[in-house]
Amino acid sequence: MQDSTPNNVIGVDGGGTSCRAALVLDGQRHEVQAGAANATTDLDGTIRTLRDALAQLRGATGISGDRLQALPAYLGLAGVLDPRTGDRIAAALNLSRAQVGDDRRTTVTGALGGGDGAVAGLGTGSFMARQTGDRLRLIGGYGLTMGDEASGAWLGRGLLSHTLHALDGLIPHCPLTDAIAAEFGDAVEIVRFASTAGAADFAGLAPRVIAAAENGDATALTLMRAGARYVEQGLHAMGWQPAEPVCLTGGVGPHYAPYLADDIANALRDPAGTALDGALRLAAGIGDAP
Amino acid sequence: MQDSTPNNVIGVDGGGTSCRAALVLDGQRHEVQAGAANATTDLDGTIRTLRDALAQLRGATGISGDRLQALPAYLGLAGVLDPRTGDRIAAALNLSRAQVGDDRRTTVTGALGGGDGAVAGLGTGSFMARQTGDRLRLIGGYGLTMGDEASGAWLGRGLLSHTLHALDGLIPHCPLTDAIAAEFGDAVEIVRFASTAGAADFAGLAPRVIAAAENGDATALTLMRAGARYVEQGLHAMGWQPAEPVCLTGGVGPHYAPYLADDIANALRDPAGTALDGALRLAAGIGDAP
Repeated sequence: MQDSTPNNVIGVDGGGTSCRAALVLDGQRHEVQAGAANATTDLDGTIRTLRDALAQLRGATGISGDRLQALPAYLGLAGVLDPRTGDRIAAALNLSRAQVGDDRRTTVTGALGGGDGAVAGLGTGSFMARQTGDRLRLIGGYGLTMGDEASGAWLGRGLLSHTLHALDGLIPHCPLTDAIAAEFGDAVEIVRFASTAGAADFAGLAPRVIAAAENGDATALTLMRAGARYVEQGLHAMGWQPAEPVCLTGGVGPHYAPYLADDIANALRDPAGTALDGALRLAAGIGDAP
Repeated sequence: MQDSTPNNVIGVDGGGTSCRAALVLDGQRHEVQAGAANATTDLDGTIRTLRDALAQLRGATGISGDRLQALPAYLGLAGVLDPRTGDRIAAALNLSRAQVGDDRRTTVTGALGGGDGAVAGLGTGSFMARQTGDRLRLIGGYGLTMGDEASGAWLGRGLLSHTLHALDGLIPHCPLTDAIAAEFGDAVEIVRFASTAGAADFAGLAPRVIAAAENGDATALTLMRAGARYVEQGLHAMGWQPAEPVCLTGGVGPHYAPYLADDIANALRDPAGTALDGALRLAAGIGDAP
């Protein structure tokens, strides 16, 4: 467990949409925001974004470049799937004591406040994790084509697929599929949308599913319950025990609470902090030797 | 019902991989093969392919261009989703009595020999159809993102998804998921493959699922049974009655026979003909007036 108030460290939470960076300096926390940072889809752009964020931190604090680059820094970035990518990024930034990992570790550390427990990260995509001591187990997070079960994109795509099934007469109509069918006009328009939609486009429909389920819509309930079953399966597959806290993070996560089994519902805790808090906490754990 | 031996007609069966065309002239059938013909993804290329096919038919038979262009012609082409696209193609080819539709109608007419019944077209993609008199009802066929349930691509993607679930501990390992996991090496390599794979790439794994199911593999049986349930659901949604024949077409179709409910299994018939046969049959039904 690290100190609860890390000092003189840099933390970065970088996602596909935007990037947040924080510098804790002499007891004061300074926070800035920059552009997108997905290391898989755009490594050069990610490095530019991070340089921008570091420059903003210098501007906000007046810290010298030399001192900044010598501070412990933890960067949790979307799409960092192998250590080499992380090393390239740290080198490009001249950060001498930086560690770069993917944004799942920072999310988990932030949500659990550095302690043990499980996290279901359910935003546009999804992943699950369990932290026990130094061991972090991660499952899922394979992208929408292969799954991202229970994610916002999975809910939205599922809604469109159920709407097509209702139009085909495979399942009964319900208010939500009726509404979606009316908005698109016909099956061809749904297929056209889906043929160019990315995960974020599908995830844009997730709030419709969440709201309809609260009103008892059959299709929406089917989807939310199927997502909840995935979360339950995942927790048990990772060896989660009822004494361990469970955090539901991401835009969709907390909305699954009513659909989870009692033992899990009883273990739910609000996240202790954000992924940026997690990055600062992980930075505080970086030793002196590079 | 049309004549069983249509005369002086042109038929075309065009798919994303290749295109077959036939000319029945004075009782003799001439057949040629040309390139890809997917009207949605490449309309100009499709028109070039069709010109090539017609030129080949002229070369094979010595028929004049004027006579050829006056013959009734039915073109069943992948990706013709609206009448305007069909009209553009017919105009570009100077065929005065041509009808252009998608390749599902030709498949159904060919498989059922022009009679009534149901067809489950299960190849790389999937669709289902029921012909009763002049009425053709079509369901499914929405592409892999939205479904294409029971198709070869759906089986292959399902196999990879189940392999990831087995690696995550969500479901038990079985010989097939073990083999796939060993071949790819790890989850990251499966995700990498899936991120660029098209429907045909996923469908390349379908024979593994079919063969493993025959050997009792649990995951393969789960997938084949789920595909069979979709076929059963689809038949009932279309109003299929046990007296009507059912044809399983496409590379995957016939392999579902052992997994279907008894009433459907008892109704199975070998397809009477191919989609090209269907195109010739539909051409024979085109009236004199354009």
